[in-house]
Amino acid sequence: MEQLVSTTEKEATTPVMKAIQKHTAGFGAQLVEVPIPTPGAGEVLIKVKATSICGTDVHIYEWDDWAKSRVKPPYVFGHEFAGEVVALGEGTKRIQIGQTVSAETHIVCHQCKQCLRGQYHICKNTKIIGVDTQGCFAEYVVMPEENLWVNPESMPAKLASIQEPLGNAVHTVLASDVSAKSVAIVGCGPIGLMAVGVAKAAGASRVYAIDVNPYRLKLAEEMGADVVINSLEQNPLELIMDQTDGDGIDVVCEMSGHPVAIDQAFKMVTAGGDVNVLSLPAKPVAIDLTRDVVFKGVRVQGITGRKMYETWGQVSTLLATGQLNVEPIITHVFKLEEFEQGFELMRAGKCGKVVLLP
Amino acid sequence: MEQLVSTTEKEATTPVMKAIQKHTAGFGAQLVEVPIPTPGAGEVLIKVKATSICGTDVHIYEWDDWAKSRVKPPYVFGHEFAGEVVALGEGTKRIQIGQTVSAETHIVCHQCKQCLRGQYHICKNTKIIGVDTQGCFAEYVVMPEENLWVNPESMPAKLASIQEPLGNAVHTVLASDVSAKSVAIVGCGPIGLMAVGVAKAAGASRVYAIDVNPYRLKLAEEMGADVVINSLEQNPLELIMDQTDGDGIDVVCEMSGHPVAIDQAFKMVTAGGDVNVLSLPAKPVAIDLTRDVVFKGVRVQGITGRKMYETWGQVSTLLATGQLNVEPIITHVFKLEEFEQGFELMRAGKCGKVVLLP
Amino acid sequence: MEQLVSTTEKEATTPVMKAIQKHTAGFGAQLVEVPIPTPGAGEVLIKVKATSICGTDVHIYEWDDWAKSRVKPPYVFGHEFAGEVVALGEGTKRIQIGQTVSAETHIVCHQCKQCLRGQYHICKNTKIIGVDTQGCFAEYVVMPEENLWVNPESMPAKLASIQEPLGNAVHTVLASDVSAKSVAIVGCGPIGLMAVGVAKAAGASRVYAIDVNPYRLKLAEEMGADVVINSLEQNPLELIMDQTDGDGIDVVCEMSGHPVAIDQAFKMVTAGGDVNVLSLPAKPVAIDLTRDVVFKGVRVQGITGRKMYETWGQVSTLLATGQLNVEPIITHVFKLEEFEQGFELMRAGKCGKVVLLP
Amino acid sequence: MEQLVSTTEKEATTPVMKAIQKHTAGFGAQLVEVPIPTPGAGEVLIKVKATSICGTDVHIYEWDDWAKSRVKPPYVFGHEFAGEVVALGEGTKRIQIGQTVSAETHIVCHQCKQCLRGQYHICKNTKIIGVDTQGCFAEYVVMPEENLWVNPESMPAKLASIQEPLGNAVHTVLASDVSAKSVAIVGCGPIGLMAVGVAKAAGASRVYAIDVNPYRLKLAEEMGADVVINSLEQNPLELIMDQTDGDGIDVVCEMSGHPVAIDQAFKMVTAGGDVNVLSLPAKPVAIDLTRDVVFKGVRVQGITGRKMYETWGQVSTLLATGQLNVEPIITHVFKLEEFEQGFELMRAGKCGKVVLLP
Repeated sequence: MEQLVSTTEKEATTPVMKAIQKHTAGFGAQLVEVPIPTPGAGEVLIKVKATSICGTDVHIYEWDDWAKSRVKPPYVFGHEFAGEVVALGEGTKRIQIGQTVSAETHIVCHQCKQCLRGQYHICKNTKIIGVDTQGCFAEYVVMPEENLWVNPESMPAKLASIQEPLGNAVHTVLASDVSAKSVAIVGCGPIGLMAVGVAKAAGASRVYAIDVNPYRLKLAEEMGADVVINSLEQNPLELIMDQTDGDGIDVVCEMSGHPVAIDQAFKMVTAGGDVNVLSLPAKPVAIDLTRDVVFKGVRVQGITGRKMYETWGQVSTLLATGQLNVEPIITHVFKLEEFEQGFELMRAGKCGKVVLLP
Repeated sequence: MEQLVSTTEKEATTPVMKAIQKHTAGFGAQLVEVPIPTPGAGEVLIKVKATSICGTDVHIYEWDDWAKSRVKPPYVFGHEFAGEVVALGEGTKRIQIGQTVSAETHIVCHQCKQCLRGQYHICKNTKIIGVDTQGCFAEYVVMPEENLWVNPESMPAKLASIQEPLGNAVHTVLASDVSAKSVAIVGCGPIGLMAVGVAKAAGASRVYAIDVNPYRLKLAEEMGADVVINSLEQNPLELIMDQTDGDGIDVVCEMSGHPVAIDQAFKMVTAGGDVNVLSLPAKPVAIDLTRDVVFKGVRVQGITGRKMYETWGQVSTLLATGQLNVEPIITHVFKLEEFEQGFELMRAGKCGKVVLLP
Repeated sequence: MEQLVSTTEKEATTPVMKAIQKHTAGFGAQLVEVPIPTPGAGEVLIKVKATSICGTDVHIYEWDDWAKSRVKPPYVFGHEFAGEVVALGEGTKRIQIGQTVSAETHIVCHQCKQCLRGQYHICKNTKIIGVDTQGCFAEYVVMPEENLWVNPESMPAKLASIQEPLGNAVHTVLASDVSAKSVAIVGCGPIGLMAVGVAKAAGASRVYAIDVNPYRLKLAEEMGADVVINSLEQNPLELIMDQTDGDGIDVVCEMSGHPVAIDQAFKMVTAGGDVNVLSLPAKPVAIDLTRDVVFKGVRVQGITGRKMYETWGQVSTLLATGQLNVEPIITHVFKLEEFEQGFELMRAGKCGKVVLLP
Repeated sequence: MEQLVSTTEKEATTPVMKAIQKHTAGFGAQLVEVPIPTPGAGEVLIKVKATSICGTDVHIYEWDDWAKSRVKPPYVFGHEFAGEVVALGEGTKRIQIGQTVSAETHIVCHQCKQCLRGQYHICKNTKIIGVDTQGCFAEYVVMPEENLWVNPESMPAKLASIQEPLGNAVHTVLASDVSAKSVAIVGCGPIGLMAVGVAKAAGASRVYAIDVNPYRLKLAEEMGADVVINSLEQNPLELIMDQTDGDGIDVVCEMSGHPVAIDQAFKMVTAGGDVNVLSLPAKPVAIDLTRDVVFKGVRVQGITGRKMYETWGQVSTLLATGQLNVEPIITHVFKLEEFEQGFELMRAGKCGKVVLLP
């Protein structure tokens, strides 16, 4: 276990907590002791029971170009969690001490045109916890009351923790009405794997899962994919066109971010179908608009975040009714202190979701 | 006037007609005499009263790569027209001799998955008259009865003739609900000019028209554009962001096909807005999916043809009620024999719609 | 078995067939021999392999007020069937001899505003086979080619026969996006029972089935209903409000036609929810628009027929993928000659679907 | 002018204001002096510049059954207003002193399922200002900050005051896409009159206005109605069916609440059309579901309040761009003290909107 580095002069009177800090403008992160934060007006202090690692956290950990341009070390990162409310700031109304909660991680402005239209998930001034603010890879985290989603008491913390990324999957799949339709999940990272399960639960007739990683394709199978395609071994376009009499797929969810896969996504969608894009390709992608979008009358939908809080309600329903079981995706659970093992698994793609327990 | 070339051994008994023929696999076209066609089962013979030149006809005329790959000279081209029904083939039911009609130019298969879903406009086996079949640049044309749209008797032929491209404009604009929204028309060719008028008629709050051709921007103004932008003189993105407090446009209709303009189209759309693409860019276009589609939660809709026949009904309503006046767009009317003048104007962009009268 | 009554002077040269005729303006029907019909232009002759009894047929059989006002005995009734194509009329194009087919029973005009908008299912001039034309309770039936839906060869005829009413159920349920939503089926006649299965297959989170008939509620359970309510024994409103924390149901499918049940349907729907009405109440129904529709912001959708042919495609997909199993609903199979047994079961509500085999 | 009745023991130190109080459980209201309220946490004090009389206020004034069951005299009523922010409570964030504002009058809970789905306008626990809380028929009013809509400085107060009911009209009309469609406004009270203007601005092809009050039908004409029908003089159904070749109306907005008019509304809608109901009929209404909803495949939408704050944005756009001019509807302006004249005009239907100036 990593040596604890205290970043604050501990005095007898300042309670501290363990946290994983993006400590420097470079690779990696550090376990540190920092003061337990205090909730301000409209804020809530939560004792973190479980927190999970997102791909975004890996970008920050690896210190890629995006991370360099966006985050400012040193700070505590992480944004997926579940915990128990332990203190309330002034003026809070809805949340009560003792409740178990997760959080919508987009903190929105309520003032831009999008917020005023009720499209909070595309707020122009979004702040993301653990990216633009102190995060939840810690024993405690402070969140605005309005961002908290109350979980059923019976929900295990490690499951509750992954509701935020599950919300991405739900938002992407349910952006189309998939009942009795074919769905392809292009890219089976953790959110893609969730999307496989969501599509099946939501009544898709046939779900195709596509990736290059055998470990994750095996998980896709466990999540209920009807057809699993390793695109290093088989041409997914040929296979799909063959299986659909040349018609293609009704709803394609692009979750890979890879230019070749994106091109295939646009080519495998049937005329009149949907391409829902959640991925964030690093560079502009060449798209054959004429053949793949215009002549086919295709609808492309950019998906970001979760609808507040419609998507959270859908996530709750899918889990509470047992329609959706995401347990197979939680492949690894570590102590907070063992975060490096989790990050290495994520980097290697040898895992589903990795949960850390503070 | 061009010398008439007879392409058929005229016998005393074969009635002939004048027609413009794509005569050879090269530039241009020829005025010829060909036999008047005979309507088969389910078909109708129409005496053409007016026919208009589409951008597609110009591609065929100029013999570009697309034309080379698609059409097979010699044949009569042209697909926009209005005329009078003069003979009925066997088994027709609805249409009667003497009616004045225009035609949906997509002849569909009724058998593919898209047709069976009622999405005839994206039929996988579409044939287009004047491209895949004999066209209407002629004194007479034969059409399947099911493709005919009956016009009010009072509608002038030259106006009735341009309903087909007007349908493209209507399909593109009304693919979004534009009431009380800002709309940008990117590319003011004849269909873009129509789209300006359609957006105003359909209740758009503010219509921006963008092009590089002053002649057409002037027409855009006549069609009711609130703001006209010559993107050679002004940066349309800067201007629009300035005028919208940085919010951008609710509904962007891409009708230019030009990569730079397409990039601007995706950048000017507001978060949560729509980009409706009717244009047919010659090559794949680089799109910044992450910034311009995903983070903004944008919807992109590929638009082709006209909904059969919902769009035709909308066109009829807009014209019959006087909500929409497209007369200013019909800038030139020639005799059929003078087709070369019309094509040259189209090639130079010095016109709106060009109508030929057989 | 009923004595065969020949309604035509049999000559040696006229081939005849057995058929069930609504023989008179009164109760009941008769097994008769009539000439095998001949397909006209655009029509197809089908050898009926299985035909099923609809509630509409029971109305005709019982000769209720609606039947009196609509149908004109003597004629052959019945409209649900599956069979094999045995002869083609002139000018048919798509269908081939030997194919196994079912039929959309609405013959539409292609000329009214609704048809021109692609809303064929609400054609103003619809004719229904077996109501307005000769029907399929017979060894052979003639249908317009355009109304035929080609079945997979492997599909059993008795299953293929009930696709038409299954289409009603699919149209009603999928008129809303039911994924991850609660659904109530109010009225568990055969179509209601199908709707239970469709809702489950389409990803509903929880399906409530409501009726007063224990036989059918048991079938509802077999079809996958999560909660089955006999409204003679339990107040469905109280039960549902109790189980949903007072929120009510997201999507209510009204299939009973009973005023009390309809009132409950409107009261059990949650604010912002949908009430999809397929039933045909015999009289106007008092609806508390203020409380049950306006203040709750409810959407009510009238459902009739099947979307042509989008709904048929959905039916095919649901059956072909095994998402939906409607076998439990086919509770009785009789020979055509035993039709009276089938009608009596239907009248008593002691059955699911009743299939007759000619 | 009414004698001022002081309802509070005026002390030198308590600033007071004039207000119209629903003083007793009976007919009428009284001008009184009450203390100027103090904004609590998250609240804002506004100096009222203009306030307008709603039909709801007339119900309270007349003390009808609904009023008896809902409101608790003595209290200040009124809910439509525009004013200037003069003091901020603790913890406000967005609004600043000196801004001119109007208010969404529904104060919502943010906790019910509807609020969590973003459907605030159908919040289960809505409180309405001036009904459930102190209102704005006064010199000052306190509102939650989150309910305030900032107006352009240039907007006249009397116009800004009627944005709330205008929002009802906008919500009702834009619940359907009315571009190039026929619209009927059934019931031309002030909101109906606004709806006429909204439908025209939103691109409706033809707007029918129906009422029994010649004064208001004249205003409907001024607002742009294409056809004005006094249903005491003409059968609106016959007239409409005659003018539409028997097709009927695409979008019917029911704003009368009268059972006969409601029946006509359902009969005049075309197959596949919409009936958007904003009115609040006092009793359940008999609806012929079979003929008027099911067979026609009609969609009925209950409309209440305004979408928060999408509708407010649409109102702002329509007014700011000049697409919509509602000035003709503001027929009377009185001093606050002259409220009785305003209420009598409203009771007599001899007015559009009546504005009071404190």
